[in-house]
Amino acid sequence: MERIGKNTLSFTRPRIVASAASVGKAEGEGPLGALFDTVNPNDGVGCATWEHAEAALASQAVQKALSKAGLQASEADIAFAGDLLNQCVGSSFGLRDLNMPFAGLYGACSTMALAAALACVFVDRGAADRALACTSSHFASAERQFRYPLSYGGQRTPTSQWTVTGSGAAVIAHADDLPHADAVTIGKIVDMGVNDINNMGAAMAPAAADTLLTFFSDTGTKPEDYELILTGDLGFVGSELLTELMKREDVDISKQHNDCGKMIFEREKQDVHAGGSGCGCSASVLCSYILPVMKEKQYKNILFCATGALMSTVTDQQGGTIPSIAHLINIKA
Amino acid sequence: MERIGKNTLSFTRPRIVASAASVGKAEGEGPLGALFDTVNPNDGVGCATWEHAEAALASQAVQKALSKAGLQASEADIAFAGDLLNQCVGSSFGLRDLNMPFAGLYGACSTMALAAALACVFVDRGAADRALACTSSHFASAERQFRYPLSYGGQRTPTSQWTVTGSGAAVIAHADDLPHADAVTIGKIVDMGVNDINNMGAAMAPAAADTLLTFFSDTGTKPEDYELILTGDLGFVGSELLTELMKREDVDISKQHNDCGKMIFEREKQDVHAGGSGCGCSASVLCSYILPVMKEKQYKNILFCATGALMSTVTDQQGGTIPSIAHLINIKA
Repeated sequence: MERIGKNTLSFTRPRIVASAASVGKAEGEGPLGALFDTVNPNDGVGCATWEHAEAALASQAVQKALSKAGLQASEADIAFAGDLLNQCVGSSFGLRDLNMPFAGLYGACSTMALAAALACVFVDRGAADRALACTSSHFASAERQFRYPLSYGGQRTPTSQWTVTGSGAAVIAHADDLPHADAVTIGKIVDMGVNDINNMGAAMAPAAADTLLTFFSDTGTKPEDYELILTGDLGFVGSELLTELMKREDVDISKQHNDCGKMIFEREKQDVHAGGSGCGCSASVLCSYILPVMKEKQYKNILFCATGALMSTVTDQQGGTIPSIAHLINIKA
Repeated sequence: MERIGKNTLSFTRPRIVASAASVGKAEGEGPLGALFDTVNPNDGVGCATWEHAEAALASQAVQKALSKAGLQASEADIAFAGDLLNQCVGSSFGLRDLNMPFAGLYGACSTMALAAALACVFVDRGAADRALACTSSHFASAERQFRYPLSYGGQRTPTSQWTVTGSGAAVIAHADDLPHADAVTIGKIVDMGVNDINNMGAAMAPAAADTLLTFFSDTGTKPEDYELILTGDLGFVGSELLTELMKREDVDISKQHNDCGKMIFEREKQDVHAGGSGCGCSASVLCSYILPVMKEKQYKNILFCATGALMSTVTDQQGGTIPSIAHLINIKA
């Protein structure tokens, strides 16, 4: 490992040896539906509560990723995981039977990138041979916690995003000839004063811009060096803002940029307003689409930059602004 | 760094170069009151809300720890932080102005040990020159979120613990002749089926036992090798259970064991029932009492084992049990 610039770490060893995603019904009906490892026929996932359903998705994704890597849970050295639920119970209930050292994280929708980044540091530096990164979200558990009871039938604003029901998990280890994490940038908290809880994309876009600009500056690279600059989950509104913010700094990402929140649903047909969101959005797109495609070398050099909004319903009700963050991984095949 | 056994990492380099704690009024009136760096005259800390007061405590502790280390915030490479509040807003609001790479954690009351452990890995392996570990809790923000509005005046059970109003922060870096983290054990999630939300000590004691037994087994050491085995925060009930659980495994920690939740308040006089709790309890005791004492070499070899209960009010209301975890740091002077 080498430190590049102030905030970027580059690696030689950590490979993403396996990944898997487990999603709900609507995600299965979306444009990437055929790619997910498990599409559950209903969002209850056979559980009595939405929270347990989310935990079950995390468990499914982890078991599948471990099985693809040919590993038992006992062979993994540490799990990095977190989610959107209060006290991160999606992860603690989903992974509690693994009997594996567990480092709980909170990065809201940036969690998959944070988990993978820390897993990479551990594997690259010999603190673990095999590390797991996992995160999850669930539309119904998120609505109950952050917004209104589903049965209330609250109206959504055009800028609001639709929390993905899904989980993604990846196994980081040493291996040959597989996609590897070449570098990571751990982001800083950025708060530009946005306080519209129904426009997370706008709150998070400045954090994505900050992390991308830091990474380009630290590595001396530019957007054209990458085939894909994938954010998650700014959705349609935040993506436009990000492109605009980058342009102001004379960096044009419009040709390379896409966003997991724009990719996972068919916007008009599935009525998701500004696109998908939630920890499980970028995690499932990364784990079931991007990484398998990179294994086939259709992409050879991409940036995965996951963004999170670090407010709570309480700080929002108190009139607080939305501190945001974005963490980045450069993945090469 | 070396890996010892399955779950323990040993270090050579990371030193705890500075630490500080900032607490509320009741903590200042307790037995350790004179040791805390900042005792706020009232728990509002000059803020409009309890949540902002908690964030202010975190900010105070971080600023003081950085200042004791002779550092500007811009000279630290990464902060590991988390707290008990939904979406960890104590940390994200408390540290948002630092303009420093930020890795958000969730480990409930185990967070200080997890944060310090990850900071040690980063510093030992060259991923950071200087890393910050911080956590916080606040009696009033925790009561509002986890229990009842204060003005309701709810009765507390004898097994319930009192959330500490306080924050602790430590700076990990390279240095000579200061207390250093010699080894860490990242704990596993342990759930023995306890579901009494008013008896966290009972829920967490098995996790502490699991991590301590793992550490003793990995390192081939025994309780007598340490001057102090400090858990946080099992309180009076959980501490007794831990000693009992360890005895069943033929390990007697009764001579070396103490608990931050037993130390921070005067039990009878301050009417705290089963003792202190909350992320800020073990963090403030560690940062303002234990580490300074180790700097003076009054203790030379201790174990700090912080425990966390990973449930939420929702999983509790759904009849769920309490998954728990404990992370351990062996600190030597």
